[in-house]
Amino acid sequence: MEVFECIFCQKSFPVDPFRPLCPLCRGPLLYKGPRKDKKFHRTKNHPLEVMLDFLPLDRVNHDLSLGEGNTPLIRLKNVEKAFGLPRVFAKNETVNPTLSFKDRGTAVAIQKAVSLGIEKIGTVSTGNMAASTAAYGAKAGLKTLVLVKEDTPMEKLLPAAIHKARMIKVEGDYGDLFRKSLRLAPRIGIYFMNSVDPFRLEGYKVTGFEIFFQLDRQVPDFIVVPVSAGGHLVGIIRAFQELKQHGYIRRYPHFIGVQAEGCSPVASAFEKNLPEVKRITKGKTIAHAISNPDPPAGNTLLRLIRETGGSLIHVPDEKILEAQHFLSEHEGLFVQPASATTLGGVIAFAKYRKLEPSSRSVLILTGSGLKTLTTASLPKDRIMQSSLADLEKIIKSIKFD
Amino acid sequence: MEVFECIFCQKSFPVDPFRPLCPLCRGPLLYKGPRKDKKFHRTKNHPLEVMLDFLPLDRVNHDLSLGEGNTPLIRLKNVEKAFGLPRVFAKNETVNPTLSFKDRGTAVAIQKAVSLGIEKIGTVSTGNMAASTAAYGAKAGLKTLVLVKEDTPMEKLLPAAIHKARMIKVEGDYGDLFRKSLRLAPRIGIYFMNSVDPFRLEGYKVTGFEIFFQLDRQVPDFIVVPVSAGGHLVGIIRAFQELKQHGYIRRYPHFIGVQAEGCSPVASAFEKNLPEVKRITKGKTIAHAISNPDPPAGNTLLRLIRETGGSLIHVPDEKILEAQHFLSEHEGLFVQPASATTLGGVIAFAKYRKLEPSSRSVLILTGSGLKTLTTASLPKDRIMQSSLADLEKIIKSIKFD
Repeated sequence: MEVFECIFCQKSFPVDPFRPLCPLCRGPLLYKGPRKDKKFHRTKNHPLEVMLDFLPLDRVNHDLSLGEGNTPLIRLKNVEKAFGLPRVFAKNETVNPTLSFKDRGTAVAIQKAVSLGIEKIGTVSTGNMAASTAAYGAKAGLKTLVLVKEDTPMEKLLPAAIHKARMIKVEGDYGDLFRKSLRLAPRIGIYFMNSVDPFRLEGYKVTGFEIFFQLDRQVPDFIVVPVSAGGHLVGIIRAFQELKQHGYIRRYPHFIGVQAEGCSPVASAFEKNLPEVKRITKGKTIAHAISNPDPPAGNTLLRLIRETGGSLIHVPDEKILEAQHFLSEHEGLFVQPASATTLGGVIAFAKYRKLEPSSRSVLILTGSGLKTLTTASLPKDRIMQSSLADLEKIIKSIKFD
Repeated sequence: MEVFECIFCQKSFPVDPFRPLCPLCRGPLLYKGPRKDKKFHRTKNHPLEVMLDFLPLDRVNHDLSLGEGNTPLIRLKNVEKAFGLPRVFAKNETVNPTLSFKDRGTAVAIQKAVSLGIEKIGTVSTGNMAASTAAYGAKAGLKTLVLVKEDTPMEKLLPAAIHKARMIKVEGDYGDLFRKSLRLAPRIGIYFMNSVDPFRLEGYKVTGFEIFFQLDRQVPDFIVVPVSAGGHLVGIIRAFQELKQHGYIRRYPHFIGVQAEGCSPVASAFEKNLPEVKRITKGKTIAHAISNPDPPAGNTLLRLIRETGGSLIHVPDEKILEAQHFLSEHEGLFVQPASATTLGGVIAFAKYRKLEPSSRSVLILTGSGLKTLTTASLPKDRIMQSSLADLEKIIKSIKFD
């Protein structure tokens, strides 16, 4: 039988997309499927069908897919050389349909919504998740509502509004808005597929499975993931837990969750060895996509990181920007600051713990730099002016760096 | 032996990335490989290795790849229903590493550049190609120069500048700039991998091969492609020419090249049955990415379209915008106006020529809508405001459309 379970209260509840939090402790519930042998299937159809046994779906409705997933795993040799690191790979989630990892989770949650006959979906988001939920809602012909913070700039609203989502800018605390949306959900009949929705998290498992297959069924030594609400890394860890449980692997990767120093409640709890994450008042970092002062899956992540022997660390903004620039200038990858924390993170990690020369690290690049174009620093000094007649002279005068 | 050939002068020239135009007629040269049996290879390595026999490469240097290609082919059932069309698919090229089809061509041209020991590359671009060339140049550690029109807005410069490219805004005519760059190329030692570079065009063939495989080695009935310089569609047609030549297929798809009405020199020449494309003074369309008044591969495309029994058509701006909105609101795909011409095009085409009920059309979606975010029309009426307290009331008041 399938249930939603609370790993803290150790209780199970009926599967209900309108009730994704534990009624006892208000922590996020996790999906648990029927106990059975699971295996991967050989099929050239939709990629989700390969891993259907591991997903909360009976079948895959192809009409709801935007072609998410199957993202490339790219070796970053210029990173390795510059920072003296062993093999580093990027899992480039920025080439998902709406240019972020959120599509992994939305793709699975939308399957569930349609199979259950739900007509209205929603989310609470500052950017990537809004665009993703709106795009999949459009494809599925569902009515979509996006709740955002009052001060969210137009640049971040448009990629969701373009898909015909209704949007409401809501005054007040973001954590309160998150909780309020889930309290309202059953009453107003809107399935809020928020950051820690149990089905969304099941979708994030797919990224873990893909990495496993892309490394020829081997376990990488480190998997480095930006941490905001906590759901993304929780989903990836659960993928490897299931791989272990079903005999595909014998050891875990070392999972490294990275937060921005200016908003690092989960990393702080880990470093100080606290039993629980303490919410902070307000985050302050350029990595807006992971600036979550009150991460709903913080405690879940803390527990899974401890159980699997992983780490949670934080990186200051200047190192995040340095990493963002390095990736664009030397690896050809233009990512959001939030994604660049992974490179900053592995560099910092390698300073206090030597990485084995044979080790392999995988950085999860979560969202495209184009999404935060206006906040990217403008390298204006690289732009010159010329007439057609002077062009040869001007070009010859350039000192390439 | 491999050569560059001019299909108009019927002459061959030595392969030289610095000399991509015919010295006699100044038309674009096309790459011609040694005459041999070609087949596709089974390999789980880099996708380009599968089709190595069909590419101008002896081997694939994995270190130069950004994970381009393998883009999804998605069924557009909502388009089919709304416009009464038989099966329509989108080949979503917007999920390439720099979010446009240009990466297909750059990926192959950069292989050539590095294998020949070239240190400086360049391009003449208004947007997509600049970002693509700069990103691959960064990955390969090459020095990259991008020449742009004087009035190019910062929004379009930044995605190339972020990869450390040097950029020059050049006063004067864009067609003159294109030609001047190629005249300067051998003197200043910069390999300008422009829109109709022979190796770039070889890269566009890969899209054609992928479509063939994604349709289980069958030929689609229509392939619809936006036309600017002409190189993209020329490359795709050549893929199917080679498939036919080597016995993989027996008939061609009907290729439909689409231009914006306000800048349609190639479509006009086709419609008026002219022997050659006549350049126009200045294009006027919201589809900036395909506003090319003097398309360098226009005549090449005109010939290939005639030889294969295809069509060249044009679509007015209001139909382009309608198509862009339909794709975002009902298919979850946010594309550039240039890409939306394909949907506008197939709708227009189906009006004067009935599509067989069993037919399959493939629309090539060339670039992400995020690249032209500031020119997208803002659906501000979908954005409301609320306090936390009023949220339930406000949500209940929404009339979803």
